[in-house]
Amino acid sequence: MVDNSQPVKTPKTSPPEWGPTAWTHLSTVRTRSPLIQCITNFVSMDLMANTLLSAGASPAMIHSLQEIPEFTPRAAAVCINVGTLTAEWLPAMRAAALAAGRAGKPWVLDPVAAGASGFRLKACLELVGLRPTVVRGNGSEIIALCNASVGASKGVDSSHESTDAVEAAKSLAKSSGCIVAVSGAVDIVTDGQRVVGAQNGVAMMQKITATGCSVTALIAAFVAIDPLHAFEATATALSIFGIAGEIGMDMAKGPASLRVHLIDSLYGLDQDTVIRRVNIISFS
Amino acid sequence: MVDNSQPVKTPKTSPPEWGPTAWTHLSTVRTRSPLIQCITNFVSMDLMANTLLSAGASPAMIHSLQEIPEFTPRAAAVCINVGTLTAEWLPAMRAAALAAGRAGKPWVLDPVAAGASGFRLKACLELVGLRPTVVRGNGSEIIALCNASVGASKGVDSSHESTDAVEAAKSLAKSSGCIVAVSGAVDIVTDGQRVVGAQNGVAMMQKITATGCSVTALIAAFVAIDPLHAFEATATALSIFGIAGEIGMDMAKGPASLRVHLIDSLYGLDQDTVIRRVNIISFS
Amino acid sequence: MVDNSQPVKTPKTSPPEWGPTAWTHLSTVRTRSPLIQCITNFVSMDLMANTLLSAGASPAMIHSLQEIPEFTPRAAAVCINVGTLTAEWLPAMRAAALAAGRAGKPWVLDPVAAGASGFRLKACLELVGLRPTVVRGNGSEIIALCNASVGASKGVDSSHESTDAVEAAKSLAKSSGCIVAVSGAVDIVTDGQRVVGAQNGVAMMQKITATGCSVTALIAAFVAIDPLHAFEATATALSIFGIAGEIGMDMAKGPASLRVHLIDSLYGLDQDTVIRRVNIISFS
Repeated sequence: MVDNSQPVKTPKTSPPEWGPTAWTHLSTVRTRSPLIQCITNFVSMDLMANTLLSAGASPAMIHSLQEIPEFTPRAAAVCINVGTLTAEWLPAMRAAALAAGRAGKPWVLDPVAAGASGFRLKACLELVGLRPTVVRGNGSEIIALCNASVGASKGVDSSHESTDAVEAAKSLAKSSGCIVAVSGAVDIVTDGQRVVGAQNGVAMMQKITATGCSVTALIAAFVAIDPLHAFEATATALSIFGIAGEIGMDMAKGPASLRVHLIDSLYGLDQDTVIRRVNIISFS
Repeated sequence: MVDNSQPVKTPKTSPPEWGPTAWTHLSTVRTRSPLIQCITNFVSMDLMANTLLSAGASPAMIHSLQEIPEFTPRAAAVCINVGTLTAEWLPAMRAAALAAGRAGKPWVLDPVAAGASGFRLKACLELVGLRPTVVRGNGSEIIALCNASVGASKGVDSSHESTDAVEAAKSLAKSSGCIVAVSGAVDIVTDGQRVVGAQNGVAMMQKITATGCSVTALIAAFVAIDPLHAFEATATALSIFGIAGEIGMDMAKGPASLRVHLIDSLYGLDQDTVIRRVNIISFS
Repeated sequence: MVDNSQPVKTPKTSPPEWGPTAWTHLSTVRTRSPLIQCITNFVSMDLMANTLLSAGASPAMIHSLQEIPEFTPRAAAVCINVGTLTAEWLPAMRAAALAAGRAGKPWVLDPVAAGASGFRLKACLELVGLRPTVVRGNGSEIIALCNASVGASKGVDSSHESTDAVEAAKSLAKSSGCIVAVSGAVDIVTDGQRVVGAQNGVAMMQKITATGCSVTALIAAFVAIDPLHAFEATATALSIFGIAGEIGMDMAKGPASLRVHLIDSLYGLDQDTVIRRVNIISFS
């Protein structure tokens, strides 16, 4: 197995040169093929596993409570997604979060539809309390978590733009100690102080189910190979996925062909394209 | 959130002008983006969510018993599908059906493989007893429900043509008070009195898993925005999905590319195409 | 229902003429459309069902313990896959294996990530003890089963080449009485004495999630229509799936388009192509 603990040389300039950093992250994922344990919703499993494979990571959809003590410490990172949450799945999510924490492995939370019910909000808040490395959601989800309130959010689709959620994201990042990412027309990433916007991607990606879930798993893969720079790895993962969508869009005739071309493009991304297209800017 | 309770102006001519009616339904789904709660089988979740998104609706795959009291009344319609039924899932299906009923929201039942076992048949009959707005199945499933008998049906694929099931469908519609739709070479819709045939679609759609499940969800979206005309909305949803298949077929080289092109086509359907291609005829 | 018990005339020459045998198997699956019950992981359900449909078989994703006594004896074969195993799913797997055995129906086991945990290994060994007709895994999985040990295997992806696992496969076949297949750059099939290599396929298939799971289901379909020649049917199923991948690769731009073209190609395979491309050789 490749050693994932070896630090990645992230350029130390400030602001980082995002293009080269993104390429370093992607090419390191391809070289190291980090094992990403995913405890995720039923809808997303297929696209999430294929996203990870296309990026060069090794997905493992393992959610059995019995296996977590043995398996999770061997994973390079864990992705936990509450999309099709039931009470039966919560103990495994909790156990994997704790096991990752104990093993010093990063884990990423996707609080799908956090505001859809009291049950779901409570579960998400409990998981946030277990201190994920990164929380990624849409505007409505991050606002629900920040306010700890069940909102008027319409199911899994956001009724807030990501930019409306910047203050909520900063506040959540500060109170939780996590990196917080908000997907939208512009993807926002914050650690509570710094705020960057990843401006890649196309609107039609929101018409494909589980693209949000899948980019969360990609964040897990990027953070897995650069855990000391989780903020940067989150931003580059969002940007890389967006670029794959942009290139895919050139060939797409609708959401289903976009999905195909997005994954193909993610698999085929080369250094020039990444460096030329990465569009991450500082908002603070 | 858009108000889904506002009536849709369905042309009142008799027989309705199906082309304009179908276009009104599709364009209203796109405008209102009704929230459709789906409690469905694992195989279909991906295609069903993508079908709803491509049609302009907002899918929510939420099946937790804990969330139903809070979440279901906020949905515009519910789709319940027993494909990968286990005893553990039944209480949530029952609860969602009851919650939809209490909230005056339409719900649609897909009795997948109803005749495959006594357990499954009993579950389907119980759900029919909770009075879905629409039941959509293939010929063998509708016959099994009508006869309340475990048949020689071969798993999930039909061994009866839809037209063989017309009498069973009418009988089931009368006894249950539901609209009954039977998919096949011609899709049949009946309220027990009226019978129409939606003659769009291509045979290869049956070689793609979960197309039947997905059109049931599309029916839920159409009925959600025109609950007073569930009979018409069921027929137009079947026709629209069939048209998407026909257009997709022009580009397809097999079932997997048909699946891609079908979803793309559904997303891109325009008024002229819908009005020109809708092929719904009265059988009674 | 078509009678699946009627023997297929497999050419009796030794070594068999693999091309005509493979074509006989595929065309018989298309004609008889055997009902294949799949108890499989959540990630694979979609691709597995579509693989079976494209090959001409009739998939039924039915895993409810309540339905097995009634349903499994009506299936032509059963495919059991432990990919997303939890303790709750094991009783149904056990019951289906026993029901298939009692009914004299072949069943096939896919021991996904067998070495990932003690829990999983124990479950897989128990299922092997129920005497599947065929066990198909990657090199690491077969080695884990043979050694009955939790290994350094990295999740679901193999860290061993199939050819490294030949001795483990032969040993497992002898001790268990099963046909054992090992997927890899060359797919290996052995009954403990004979060893053949199915040399079709392309490397990129490993970048698509659930291709391994899906070919296991295809093996179930092939063995279903030729249960007296499970060794040959396993080899031809692997070869046919590989050929579909080779043809798909000519049109693919990455893993997602390969997936589409693979399924399309499987659907469209004709006699000439099969006979010309089948590449199975004897290693013993």
